[in-house]
Parts: sequence; structure tokens; C-alpha cells
Amino acid sequence: MDYRPRLARAQEGMRARGLDALLVAPSADLTYLTGLHAKPGDRLTALLLPSGGEAVLLVPTLEAAGLDAATLPGELLQWPDGTNPLDLLVARLDGAGVVGVSESLWARDLLPLLARLPNARMVSAAPVLQPLRVIKDETEIDLLRRAAHAADRVFDRISAIGLEGRSEREVAGLLEALLVEEGHDAPAFTIVGSGPNGASPHHETGDRRIARGDLVVLDYGGSIAGYSSDITRTVAVGEPGPEARAAYEAVRVAQEAGVYAVWPGALAGAVDTITRDALDEAGYGAYVVHRTGHGLGQELHEPPYLVADDDTPLEPGMVFSVEPGVYLPGRFGVRIEDIVLVTPDGVERLNRAPRELVVSDE
Amino acid sequence: MDYRPRLARAQEGMRARGLDALLVAPSADLTYLTGLHAKPGDRLTALLLPSGGEAVLLVPTLEAAGLDAATLPGELLQWPDGTNPLDLLVARLDGAGVVGVSESLWARDLLPLLARLPNARMVSAAPVLQPLRVIKDETEIDLLRRAAHAADRVFDRISAIGLEGRSEREVAGLLEALLVEEGHDAPAFTIVGSGPNGASPHHETGDRRIARGDLVVLDYGGSIAGYSSDITRTVAVGEPGPEARAAYEAVRVAQEAGVYAVWPGALAGAVDTITRDALDEAGYGAYVVHRTGHGLGQELHEPPYLVADDDTPLEPGMVFSVEPGVYLPGRFGVRIEDIVLVTPDGVERLNRAPRELVVSDE
Repeated sequence: MDYRPRLARAQEGMRARGLDALLVAPSADLTYLTGLHAKPGDRLTALLLPSGGEAVLLVPTLEAAGLDAATLPGELLQWPDGTNPLDLLVARLDGAGVVGVSESLWARDLLPLLARLPNARMVSAAPVLQPLRVIKDETEIDLLRRAAHAADRVFDRISAIGLEGRSEREVAGLLEALLVEEGHDAPAFTIVGSGPNGASPHHETGDRRIARGDLVVLDYGGSIAGYSSDITRTVAVGEPGPEARAAYEAVRVAQEAGVYAVWPGALAGAVDTITRDALDEAGYGAYVVHRTGHGLGQELHEPPYLVADDDTPLEPGMVFSVEPGVYLPGRFGVRIEDIVLVTPDGVERLNRAPRELVVSDE
Repeated sequence: MDYRPRLARAQEGMRARGLDALLVAPSADLTYLTGLHAKPGDRLTALLLPSGGEAVLLVPTLEAAGLDAATLPGELLQWPDGTNPLDLLVARLDGAGVVGVSESLWARDLLPLLARLPNARMVSAAPVLQPLRVIKDETEIDLLRRAAHAADRVFDRISAIGLEGRSEREVAGLLEALLVEEGHDAPAFTIVGSGPNGASPHHETGDRRIARGDLVVLDYGGSIAGYSSDITRTVAVGEPGPEARAAYEAVRVAQEAGVYAVWPGALAGAVDTITRDALDEAGYGAYVVHRTGHGLGQELHEPPYLVADDDTPLEPGMVFSVEPGVYLPGRFGVRIEDIVLVTPDGVERLNRAPRELVVSDE
């Protein structure tokens, strides 16, 4: 893949905002701009991008042997063990007035850079990088759509398996295997919250055995070439009681309302308000504990965030989750999540698994 | 586990260094001090520790339901979606003179904190936290020793399997399964670098098939309760040529010399110098591309680092790798790595897998 167009667009954004240089630490930003997958911590890898001219990739000499220089955009600047990579950065940034740093840059590096470059003003690079990453290109949309459809097939298969009597951990293991079988490179995460455990949105999958009468929250995803699926369905094991059914129906209606509120020009916060209002009206306002959704791309959670008062206008090419939920402590939780794409004239659901309550009963 | 003694020791260190508060972002530091496993990015989790008095754990409301408050040291301060967690931090840090921040704190949070707390001086928390983490307690040593011995058993088993004709990826899969079978909770990483691929120290395991005459670098580890093993052995597939044998022998001698140079009071940099000198004398100086070792604990790479000119005196309770290697571009690599523990009167090798060249031949 040719990363030069992305770098050129970042440079346009820098010039528009008066940034002289951009310093990007290991993160989804770095991968997006260069294809490099580097871990934060220990030996520093970073991209240094001037507002005009060639990019510079600072890499540990140790890692340089494993890089294919031909696929990397820009000059490769190596630093061997026993030297300080900040010396190289300071030399290159000398004279820069405004330096944008990626959100993920560590204090370990930022504090000494602030001290050693007293004439530079360090600002967040997010205003330059977020507008690029938030609009997905065709390649990205294709990967996200493929991953979503694969996750749908995983749901078809897991909901056809009897869940009663299995432990949460066992179901998570099945999900991981199915994610790969249906075309993901690898599982990204699995949450299996059964019965009262479903009332914790990010429940850590455990040893509880799924019993008749449980609602079970299944939230999982896997990645294809770095882009993930992320779907939640809540299934009933045996016929649910009237309260569980009512809560499910309230969440289903709220999720429908949220998806239909997605439109170019709608505000991210408005989608959140609509799902909250729907849950409020149904009497579940006290059991709402999280925002309605998050963007999905190089990261599992990234802008835009569908959160109260967020006035980001939705634009074609944005991809995010719509996932309202209610959580009744000690009893159960319900969440329904689809990934959606904003299109020029509305919305495309990337997930198509059934949203009517599935009763697992065998 | 009771984390209060660790917090109390951190507070002692803060008072000794004149720090009023400590701000610890998601990282091994946070896990070490509180047991919390939080991911960086997205919703902020942080520990705020005053130099006297109770710790404060800032957590997203969403995550609070999944936490067992009884096991957490200190006050739980929740922030709901749609609010800014930095508001709570700024309120609590108001009036603090010197604030130590963990190395992993993101620029996303540090830049606005610097702007909103103009009277505070933000410094690195590393001088307070590193001296604590670098000396392992009995519980930590026990986990590291168990993990190392399990990794040794994995080597016994993998070296008894014929490697010829298998792909690197297949061998990595076998290592992952063996790591779990021998008692790890999960694999942490695997590097399989065969033939010319071994010349890249962090080679990404690929599809190359292992052939007769190859040297194969096997570098792998798995974790037990968050503490990992990390061992490297280089094996020959079929009888190696004289050059491969000579390089292997040079690395073996350098590694022995490095391990025997470990002693309380020896300098970290001196161990590095000794292995380099040994490789230099054997004529491989031009093929040395990385430091001799790294600490191991909550992180796979952490202080102390055995790197040129590092004047950290080694102390009982430190655990680190001794792993010299030589890398002949386009031809092969050799690395031998053991984890060692500094004892009151010398050194304990936690790994005991054979260091004589193993020839895989069947």
C-alpha cells in the first residue's frame, strides 16, 4: 500500500493549522500513516513529519533489519541501543515553532522534549489527524464490511448451539474459534455476560455456568488486516420472563431509533440523546450507564463518539457502533450493537444479524 | 493481594523526592500498585496518590460495575460518559506543587493538565516507581521462576521434535501450545527465525520452511499471573557448517561470561561490555546489534537494561535477561538468552535449558 497520499493530506492539515512538524508515537495514528506496527514503551519508534518535504521514521537499529525499506514512506533514521533517540528528535525539531504530537506520545518522551525545546509550542496533533482517520476510504470500508458480515455469521452459528449448561469461558472459546472460521485473521475480544454478570457492560468472562432463564450478552469481534468487527447480541436461554422481555424490547426500539437518526449532518450527540430518550420513556433511564457508540477503524474505540453534547456532525464515510444497553444490577443486562456506515444519503448497517430476541432452547 | 504496602512505599519515595502527588496512567505501574488492568486510550483510568493519605482511583463509571471495590486500595472516583475526567483530576491536583506522572501518561492528558495546572511542576514518576518495581519480592520471584522452568520444559519438547520441513509459523504454533501445556496461562510472544531470517533479531515469524543446514532462533515466552518467561535458544537442523558452529560457540562463551559478571554491585553496563568484548575478540563485533539484556517483571522489557554505559548497580532481587547475539545479514543469527536473578551472593539462572548446541536431526 502507498502511504504517501495519507502523509500528503496530513501535511495539508498541518499547513492549514500552522503546524511546523508532527511527531507521531506508536499508535493507530502511526499505523494509519506509515503501515508500521510498533509497540509503545521500551525502544522508541516515531514518525517525524515536516509540514513540507519528506517524512522521517525514527526506528531502533534492532528493528530496522526487519523492515522493508521499500514499503516505508520517507527517510529511515536509526538509533542504536545505548544512544538516546530524543537527541535525534531534538536535533530535527530545532527551530520548529509549533509541533503537533500524537495523543499517545508518552510523558517519558514529552516531558524531556518540552524541557529541551523551550522555544517550540507542543500541541495535540488530534485536530490534524482525527479528521483524516474518521472518514474511512474504500479499502477501509471494505475491510470493515467483510469483518461485520463474518461476525454476523458467527452469531448465526453461536445462536444455533445450545448455551444452557456451558460456562461463559467455554462460550467465549467457541466464539473465538468461530471468528477465525468465518474469515477473521484473529479474535479481537469476547465478552460473555450471563444472567447477573450481564449487568456489567465490560464483564470479564468467567466460570459461571449459563442457566435456563438467563439473558446472555454476547459482545465480540475479530480483525481482518487490522480492521475489526464489533457486534453485540443478547440472547435468552429458554423462554425469558416478562421483565427481561420488556427490557429487551426497550433496547431494541432504542437501537432502531438510534440507527435511523444517523444521517449526514446529524450531530453525534443527537444520536445519543435519541437512544437515551427512548430508554427513558420506557422507564429504564436509571439503568443506562454508557454512551451510545464509538467509532471503529484502526482502533476498536476511536472517534466519533456518540456521547451527550458531542456536536460533531456526522459525515459520509464515518463508521461507528450504535449500541444502547440497560443494566439492572444483580439481575441482567441487555445490549444490542450494530456497526453502521454513514452514506451520502443515510446509513448502511454493516451488521445484519437478527435483532429480534433469539431464544436459545434445545 | 494487599496493595497497601506498595502504595506506602511509593509514598515514602514521594516524600523523599519532594513530590506532592503521583498520577499513574494505565500501565504496568498501575497494575503493580493497584492490581488494576486497564488499557490506555479511550476512557481514562488513573491512580492519584497523594504523598500522605488515601489513594484515589479514577475509573469510568462503565467499568466500576466490574470492579471488586473490596480488593482495591483507596477511594473509587467514578466519571460517567459525557463528562471530562480531567476536570476531576484538576480539582484534586489544585494546589499541588510537584506532580509525578507515570511514563506512560498520554500527551492527550498531559498537555491539557499542563495548561490547566500552571502552578504545578510535572515531573517523571520514574525515579519513585522504578526503584520499587526493579527489586522483585518473593511472590514475583516465585512466578518468574515457575515461568522460566516451564519455558525450559517447552525447549526440551520442541527440540525433540524434528523441525526440518516445518514452516516457522507452524513451529510458533507448536511453541504456543507447549507454553500452555507446560503451565503458562497464555503465550506472550514467539519468534521463530530460520536461516537468513534469524539475522533479524525481532524477525516476524513467517512462512519460510525450515531446511537442513539452517540455524533456527527460537525466542518465546508465556505468562503466569502476569509474569512472563523469556528464553532464546538457537538450534541447528542437521549438522551445521563450521562458520555456524564458530558463531554459536562465540555467543555461548559471551553469554557465559555475561552471566558470571552478574553480582550485587556490578554495573548493568559492565555486563553489556563483557559480552561485547567477548564477541569482539571472537571477531563478531560488527554483527552485534542490540544490548545484552532487559529486566523482566510486570513488563516483558523493563529496567534494568544491560546497555553500554548504564551505571545502575545490580542489586539482589533484580531479574533480567542475559542474551547476547550475533546477526550475519542474509546468512543466519545466533542468540542465547537466560533469565537470571541477582542473589545476595551472586546470581541464579532461572533458565536451565541446555546451552550447548542442540542439533535437531531426525
